[in-house]
This record gives sequence, structure tokens and C-alpha cells, in this order.
Amino acid sequence: MSRFFMNERETLVEQALEGLVEAHGGLVDVHTDPLFVTRRVPATGKVALVSGGGSGHEPLHTGFVGQGMLDAAVPGDVFASPTALQVRAAIQAADTGEGTVMVIKNYTGDVLNFSIAAELLSETHRVEQVLVDDDLATQKEDEGGPGRRGTAAVVAVEKICGAAAEAGAPVVEVRELGREVVARSATLGVSFEACTNPMTGRRSFDLEPGEMEFGVGIHGERGIETRPTTGAAELVESLVTPLVESVGLRRGDSVLAIVNGLGATHGLELGVAARETRRVLDGLGIGVARSLVGPYVTSLDMKGLSITLTALTDDLVKFWDAPVRTPALVW
Amino acid sequence: MSRFFMNERETLVEQALEGLVEAHGGLVDVHTDPLFVTRRVPATGKVALVSGGGSGHEPLHTGFVGQGMLDAAVPGDVFASPTALQVRAAIQAADTGEGTVMVIKNYTGDVLNFSIAAELLSETHRVEQVLVDDDLATQKEDEGGPGRRGTAAVVAVEKICGAAAEAGAPVVEVRELGREVVARSATLGVSFEACTNPMTGRRSFDLEPGEMEFGVGIHGERGIETRPTTGAAELVESLVTPLVESVGLRRGDSVLAIVNGLGATHGLELGVAARETRRVLDGLGIGVARSLVGPYVTSLDMKGLSITLTALTDDLVKFWDAPVRTPALVW
Repeated sequence: MSRFFMNERETLVEQALEGLVEAHGGLVDVHTDPLFVTRRVPATGKVALVSGGGSGHEPLHTGFVGQGMLDAAVPGDVFASPTALQVRAAIQAADTGEGTVMVIKNYTGDVLNFSIAAELLSETHRVEQVLVDDDLATQKEDEGGPGRRGTAAVVAVEKICGAAAEAGAPVVEVRELGREVVARSATLGVSFEACTNPMTGRRSFDLEPGEMEFGVGIHGERGIETRPTTGAAELVESLVTPLVESVGLRRGDSVLAIVNGLGATHGLELGVAARETRRVLDGLGIGVARSLVGPYVTSLDMKGLSITLTALTDDLVKFWDAPVRTPALVW
Repeated sequence: MSRFFMNERETLVEQALEGLVEAHGGLVDVHTDPLFVTRRVPATGKVALVSGGGSGHEPLHTGFVGQGMLDAAVPGDVFASPTALQVRAAIQAADTGEGTVMVIKNYTGDVLNFSIAAELLSETHRVEQVLVDDDLATQKEDEGGPGRRGTAAVVAVEKICGAAAEAGAPVVEVRELGREVVARSATLGVSFEACTNPMTGRRSFDLEPGEMEFGVGIHGERGIETRPTTGAAELVESLVTPLVESVGLRRGDSVLAIVNGLGATHGLELGVAARETRRVLDGLGIGVARSLVGPYVTSLDMKGLSITLTALTDDLVKFWDAPVRTPALVW
């Protein structure tokens, strides 16, 4: 049992976003009624990039609003989808007449509400969508069902689409680039301790000492299997190996590796995970051309991490390297 | 009980630093035997700024190596001081002939080993020191004893001294500026859950539901008092009020506010804390001219946060705003 630091549950997300603006006042603005976040200095004459989803994953998505990445982000309540009216308002604020690409993590509520927003705007706005479904743990052989969940590959999609939009790519090109990143990406996560529900102060599941949860997502749910804990080298290998197979990587390929902390994982731990990720890939003749190591797509205070691999092309590297200036990513 | 993700305890720090380099390969290099971190592209013709201390506080200090901040950082083992020989090697690597300023958090081992390093180099190097002792919780009325601990104000010292050094300030001026920042700063921290010892997997202390530990430092030790938990507004007021008094802030003053996560505190929680910090200071007529919100000086996976206030001058604002390019701070 652990306490979530806040005032009231009802005001948590809005007050936290106010704090975000204080911390990064020059970069973003928070709009209330309905709630969404935009760049303080709006872009002009480019495709708008809009994302969003439940809160509790910060810095995702609000921390990625700014030059070279998102134009607007739409936060729902903790682990709950934003409403279609929030999404509509964000698109209306962000669209400069060149059309909008929505980046949606694959969850039923998000898909529904973003789609309704696009439908509501269909007579006045050109709205395209990229569905991010990178989580290998939720891959099913049979057809039907909601499909794979969207997790940390969304950061690569937002960065790369954001750079393309900033460079003047038209709306269909930005959409296709986003879909290419999704097709080239896969993610697997593991948890050593569940996250705390801000409402109850209780953890979402319990693990015995010596157990870890393999194949977790980002909403505190159990993974696909409870396994005995292992050292970092062995665990990273068990995450990376299926990713390499899923993405279809071969000797000589190069990847972007996102080593993502799920909330309460320490920098020392992520450092070790990054080292092991490179070691495993080196052994397969696959080069880590770019990497991102840190807590970028969190699941409240979950202890754990995910690894995302994205097969790179020269074009993707160019857009990944392009300048970005957001609260959570700057280069 | 929770597991720390690593291979062996003995290789933790070195392997984590290898990962840091992978994540920020363009910015820093790790040297082993002895262990220290430098900028990949060394500065020339400026005062060198060197800091360090026990590991477990990442991104401090290794994440602050780079243009506009540190020239080298010297990591000890988890919560243990680096050796004098490590510090000496780092100074030898960083000093360009213009002298070195060491930024030392006030802990007996750090003070001793940095001082020995300076002494070992006394015939060949000009080495000055800034002692950071901002933690109000360890203030004692009586003389003697080790004095106040060094905590998150060290980030302000490193940023501001780093900018001054980059701007060509001589060694005595950089030292005096650092001492001025220390004199103008105070910090208080609170914990909702202790950190986990990587060696044993055990928490460093236990709290009952509804309890928090007021006045904690950054090494997992208990604070000055176990108190009942409160909402964010009341708790932030209880942290900020003594800081305002200690720094001697008055209506019309402006401050840098560092709202620092101690490890496992979520971005939503830090956002709320940042909002409340501004609210309390607004009520006192004190302006938050600059702020930094995030996990910058951690205590492994401690749940909790600290607030640091630094009374600003025009000069300090200028150095705070100067460009910086390190793994953990970029603007």
C-alpha cells in the first residue's frame, strides 16, 4: 500500500497539467473545458499532429507537445480515454488547414472516441489516423478481437511523424510514415511490482518475492505469464529475442531501441537494461543506431520496463534526428 | 520487498554507466580504472567543473556532464563516496590549465575524498571547492557536527557555475558564484515510502498506511519526524514555509523552484507539487521566475519529493538560462 501524492482524485489530472505548464511555461498551454494541451506558439501551414489517451503514462502524451512533435495532446482521466469532444476541440485548435493526423494507441475507448471526433469534423477537416499496436504480448493467432495494444512505439511514431509534418510533408505522407513506423516496431514489457491505483492506494496485482510479470502493458494489468526473476542479461535477452523475430530483423539491420521505464524504475536499472539490449543485438549482428533510455511511457509507479525495437531506414533516421523541443524530448 | 533490476551488485554502477553512454553516446564518455565520466568533446581554455558522489541519485551527477554544466563526474558505489584517486583522475582529465572548481555535497566521505584529491594535486593544479549544504532538515542550532546535508540545490549550483565557467569566468569567480547559490538555497524533502536497497531488496524503513516521513535526505535514512499524510496543498505549504524563512525571502522576491522527484514519484504527482509550490509562493508575493520539475536528484526508488528554493538575482537568472546540453538537462 502506498500513497499517491495529490489533492483530490477528481482534480488530479487538471492540477498536474497546470504544474506541467509551470515547469515548461514557454512551450505548452493547457486548455480547460474541454481539457487539452497545445503548443504555446502554434505552428502554421503544416499538417497537425494530435495524440492523447488516458493519463498516468506521463510524460506521454502531454510531454511531447512542441516543435518537431505533437501540436496537441488530449489527456483522459487516469487510465481512461479522453472524450470525443476533447479530441474534437484539440483538432480544431491544431488544424491549420493542411489536415490532421491522429496518433492513437490501440485501445477500444481511444479508437472509438478519436474516430467519433474525426467523424464530427468530417465536413470541415481532413483527419487521418495512425493506429499504434506494437505490444507483442497481446498478439493473438486468431482473427478478431481488439488486436495488439499500443505502448512505447508511440514515441517513435510521434517523433518521426512530427518531424515529417514540420518538414512540410502532406497529410497522407505523414500518415503513411506513421504506419510504416508501426509496422517496423514491436514492444515487450516486464514488471517487478504492480502500480498503485491513485483512488485506493492499492497495487493492481501482487507478486511473491522472486516473481516477475512478463508481457505487461501500461495499465497495471497482469502480463501473459508470471515467471521467476532472472539477472538483467537473461531477462533482456528474453525480451529482445521475440522482438527481433517479430520485426523480422536480420544481421546487418539497424534499429532504434527504446528502453522505457514504466514509472518507478531507477536510472541505474535502465542503464543496465540499455547496456544489455545493445549486447544482445550486437550478438545478432544488429546495430543499435539510435536509442532512447528513460521513463517515457509510464504506468503510474509500476516497477518494470519495456523494450521497443524499430527497424530503421535512412528516412526514419533523418526524421528521428530532426530537432525537437518539447517538455520531455529536446535535441 | 522489491527487486532491483541488474546483473551483479558489484558491476551495477559500471554497467549502468555503459548504458548511459549508449543512450547519450554523443555527449559523454565513461572512463574505467578508475571510474569517471567526461564530456566526449572536452572543453578548452575554461575553468573545469567537477562533481560526484555516491551513485543511486541518477541522473545526478553523470547526467549533468556536458556543455554548459559539468566537465567531469565521479560516481562512487551506491550511496558510497568515490575514492580520492577517482576524483584526482577526473580533475586531471578535465583541467585545461584554468583551474578546477569541485562541487561537493556535504557528506563526510565526499568532503574527505575530494579534499584529498585536491591535496594530491596541489603542486600542479589550482583546485577550488564549493560545498553544497542546502538540506534544512539537518540544520542544528549547536555548532560542530557535519552540518547540513547536500541535496537538490546541487543542480542549481552545477547549472549556474557551469554557465559561468563556459562564459569564461575565472576560477575564483566560479567558486564564489557557487557559494552564493548555496547561501541563497534551501531544500526540504518528504517520503511516502522508503527506497529499496539493491543488495537486499529490502526497504530502508517502514511506514504505516497514513504515515509519511518528513525531512528525509537522499540516502534512504529516516527524516526528522513521522507525520500523518495530508493532501498536496497542505504538505507543500509545510515544506515551502520553512524554506521561505530560511532563505529570508520577502514579498517581491523571485525564486528558482526545484520540485524534485526522489525516484518513484510519478509525473502527475510532481505536476501537482509544482502547482502547489507556485500557489503557496504566490500567496506570499514571491514569484517563481524559473522552475525545474522532475526526478533530478533521486534516492533510488524512494517515493517522495523535495522542494528547493533559490533566491534569484539577475546574474543567477542569466546563468540559469544559458544554453546547456547534457544527458539530463538540455535547453
